[in-house]
Amino acid sequence: MGYYEEIKLSKKSEQHLYVQLYDAIKNHIIQGTIKADEKLPPIRQLAEILCVNNATVVKAYELLEQEGYVYKRVGSGTFVSLKPYPLSAAIESVRLPVDEDLSLMNRGQIQIQEHMVSFASATPTPDLFPVDDFQILLNEVLNRDKGNAFGYQESQGYFPLRESLVAYMRQYGIETKSENIQVISGAQQGIDVIAKAFINPGDVVILEKPTYTGAIATFKSRGAKIIDIPIREDGLDIEALEAVIEKYRPNLIYLMPNFQNPTGYSYSREKKQRVLSLAQQYSFHIVEDDYLSDLSFYHTENTTLKSMDQQDHVIYIKSFSKIFMPGLRLGFLVLPEKAYPRILAAKHASDISTSGLIQRAFDLYLRNGIWKKHIHYMENIYKERYEIMDQVIRKYILPLGITYHPPLGGLNFWLCLNEKFSTNQLYNMAVKKNILIVPGSLFSVDQKDSNCFRLSIAAVYPEQIEPGIQALSEVIKEYIESKDNKKRNTGVYTPLL
Amino acid sequence: MGYYEEIKLSKKSEQHLYVQLYDAIKNHIIQGTIKADEKLPPIRQLAEILCVNNATVVKAYELLEQEGYVYKRVGSGTFVSLKPYPLSAAIESVRLPVDEDLSLMNRGQIQIQEHMVSFASATPTPDLFPVDDFQILLNEVLNRDKGNAFGYQESQGYFPLRESLVAYMRQYGIETKSENIQVISGAQQGIDVIAKAFINPGDVVILEKPTYTGAIATFKSRGAKIIDIPIREDGLDIEALEAVIEKYRPNLIYLMPNFQNPTGYSYSREKKQRVLSLAQQYSFHIVEDDYLSDLSFYHTENTTLKSMDQQDHVIYIKSFSKIFMPGLRLGFLVLPEKAYPRILAAKHASDISTSGLIQRAFDLYLRNGIWKKHIHYMENIYKERYEIMDQVIRKYILPLGITYHPPLGGLNFWLCLNEKFSTNQLYNMAVKKNILIVPGSLFSVDQKDSNCFRLSIAAVYPEQIEPGIQALSEVIKEYIESKDNKKRNTGVYTPLL
Repeated sequence: MGYYEEIKLSKKSEQHLYVQLYDAIKNHIIQGTIKADEKLPPIRQLAEILCVNNATVVKAYELLEQEGYVYKRVGSGTFVSLKPYPLSAAIESVRLPVDEDLSLMNRGQIQIQEHMVSFASATPTPDLFPVDDFQILLNEVLNRDKGNAFGYQESQGYFPLRESLVAYMRQYGIETKSENIQVISGAQQGIDVIAKAFINPGDVVILEKPTYTGAIATFKSRGAKIIDIPIREDGLDIEALEAVIEKYRPNLIYLMPNFQNPTGYSYSREKKQRVLSLAQQYSFHIVEDDYLSDLSFYHTENTTLKSMDQQDHVIYIKSFSKIFMPGLRLGFLVLPEKAYPRILAAKHASDISTSGLIQRAFDLYLRNGIWKKHIHYMENIYKERYEIMDQVIRKYILPLGITYHPPLGGLNFWLCLNEKFSTNQLYNMAVKKNILIVPGSLFSVDQKDSNCFRLSIAAVYPEQIEPGIQALSEVIKEYIESKDNKKRNTGVYTPLL
Repeated sequence: MGYYEEIKLSKKSEQHLYVQLYDAIKNHIIQGTIKADEKLPPIRQLAEILCVNNATVVKAYELLEQEGYVYKRVGSGTFVSLKPYPLSAAIESVRLPVDEDLSLMNRGQIQIQEHMVSFASATPTPDLFPVDDFQILLNEVLNRDKGNAFGYQESQGYFPLRESLVAYMRQYGIETKSENIQVISGAQQGIDVIAKAFINPGDVVILEKPTYTGAIATFKSRGAKIIDIPIREDGLDIEALEAVIEKYRPNLIYLMPNFQNPTGYSYSREKKQRVLSLAQQYSFHIVEDDYLSDLSFYHTENTTLKSMDQQDHVIYIKSFSKIFMPGLRLGFLVLPEKAYPRILAAKHASDISTSGLIQRAFDLYLRNGIWKKHIHYMENIYKERYEIMDQVIRKYILPLGITYHPPLGGLNFWLCLNEKFSTNQLYNMAVKKNILIVPGSLFSVDQKDSNCFRLSIAAVYPEQIEPGIQALSEVIKEYIESKDNKKRNTGVYTPLL
């Protein structure tokens, strides 16, 4: 019961004491240090330990009960619930066994304070958005289309936009036609729609390990059986992949072949070809999530699978969140010919159609050719940041015994400590120094603690990068040393308990 | 094989002949007149029958094969596929055993020609949208918030909008707080998010019969076991409901207590109270889809369940599609306190967040009070149409032996022929006279043909209503007579086959 003694409440905090206490106990429950059905201390006893009024403990316990973390048994006290909240099996697993901030970050919802350096966000900052251009186009659409811009759109997408997207795709070597385009309200919806169309509960889906959190959540929510395969610097191990395919005969495999999230790794041309051959041989669909192939700073391999897809096995997802604006909630799928009816039904059941106003404005954006100018602009911005980041990682971080494979494009850097370390802990230490990173646990299906973490350059300004990384390197040093000391201590003293 | 002879191809049509032929055969396959594994006629034979080139038939067959409607067996010909396309079990059932137009209508995708009178659409016409007001507000937001309007929003919804919605709800007798509001991208997404949060495959959901097609599709897609209970003029039969609840112990029941879609029926106050008591007794959630309670023309009972919900069992869905603009893709949920974490995770997995730009503009719309003016405007428009509709239904339709319960509000009228009749057939006859109705089969879980159909006043102008209903009454008369004649004929002649 030692953890109750360690709870620190501050009377100077803006938070009420009972809320602080509620938070502390909740975190222990979520982290599993206080287990299901364990009894909480009697109210007076805990009040005494923490030097607070009984009323503070009463209110904290009430809040815990309201939120479903504990339950009362009349006459015998307060106990930890079996499940913090009886979430449906599918959603529950999205919860994190780490602290509240992290669980917010998992939903992209962390509040970033002004004084923080966020290497966590993979989303560009609002000052990079082409807002003025877009405002002009929105008005052009409204003046031209009036109420029609606010009627229901075709579920498949506004036809002229689908035509523009066909032309846009041609620039990237993908030949398709408007019938095979499905407009979606962002890449996350794309994954959700694909899951609805192709996955029944118990179906196997293969993912990369680590991979995009949102994909894990969606496939889990659909009841899929997820098999993940570790990714290497040049893509999945094809033999391992084939063995898993042979065994499980999946319907779908979900990949990010270029500048993978979170690792930044890209598949070699040969591996891309081999994945396509497997799709042909074993007859499954590949979901290619192309959130960033546009950002290849050194003209290295960034061919999309879809452009190599002779046999029509690839469902291609394109998002505009990183290159244009995340709040557009706009993206599209390029579909294999036969996938169309299923996908359309799934899209319709999801939200009927994507905003017509946004579709129409973005259509003009593509037709006017402004997007080329903008992508070029974003490339330059990100390339500058990339080069600073690469340099300072080499200067401050690598000497600490950390491994790193330069991605040569994209926005993400994947750094790994020695295997004994925990980046959940590192995250908690770094956040106290106002540095945000994303621990590897967020990107894995089982959400186990990991020795790797992700840094992104999407939301840091060039002048923030060196001081930020330097500060981070000090946190890492401190963390490594504290771990080493603990080890030494463990040898000398026998800790109580 | 007589149906091939009856195929009519027009050389004057803008459609290629082979596309016309493809369409005709596809429709027969979908309708089931050409059955699975039936052989299509040899190419030359069909070309001769229809007086077209062999190449036309070849191309039509190729297209049918591409689309998965037929398959070839080398040396023996072309055969109808077992299933038009092997859709996943969940989605497949959304397909209709009627003709292509109807299946498009099912997805809200039917192309309404200018000369048609559409009693089918329940969506207001674009000329009724407050576009000018909204354009001003969009610009106000962009000038004020710049890029922030296009960043990711909180998944739960833009906070000031949630505050405005709390105030908006108060006007309707619903007391809530911003923490219990979840912004959604339209009511359809609301149903989808609720299904993700609360339904695991095999869980029981209770629906009204008939009910909203989109809800059926979503719950099916989630793998729910659906039990539907016939609705009466004053709501569900509470004894029947309780028996089903007792037997199946559902997690969720989905209701539209005011001006139900498609029937227009409203629950009596007493039945509303009894449904809430059942929720308390058997501990389930009620999903209240309030798409229209605002439109009570005669101040009849239109209390929402949520406003009566003392025990916090109701998940309330509010859509703005009928009162404002469907293309906004905006709505919200009012959640029971405990439902919040599940719903938030499900929303995040669906599309991360709803468009920030639209949320911000709509927030101003509510804050400026323009919505009151607009709702009043819409009420007047719809009330005028309602009264004309009610009159002409009494004048032209009721004398044909059709039953009807005046809804006293909302946009939908539910008319029932004698039980022996098919409104799928009536739909097909009416469409030839340029009148669109929605046959009852679209609103039932099993999509069986029905003797009832829905008329809506959302997309017809006052001056169209009388001629439209008169024309429809003639179609109905013709249909009834043809049925009666057939019967008589059957008695006299023994039909071939």
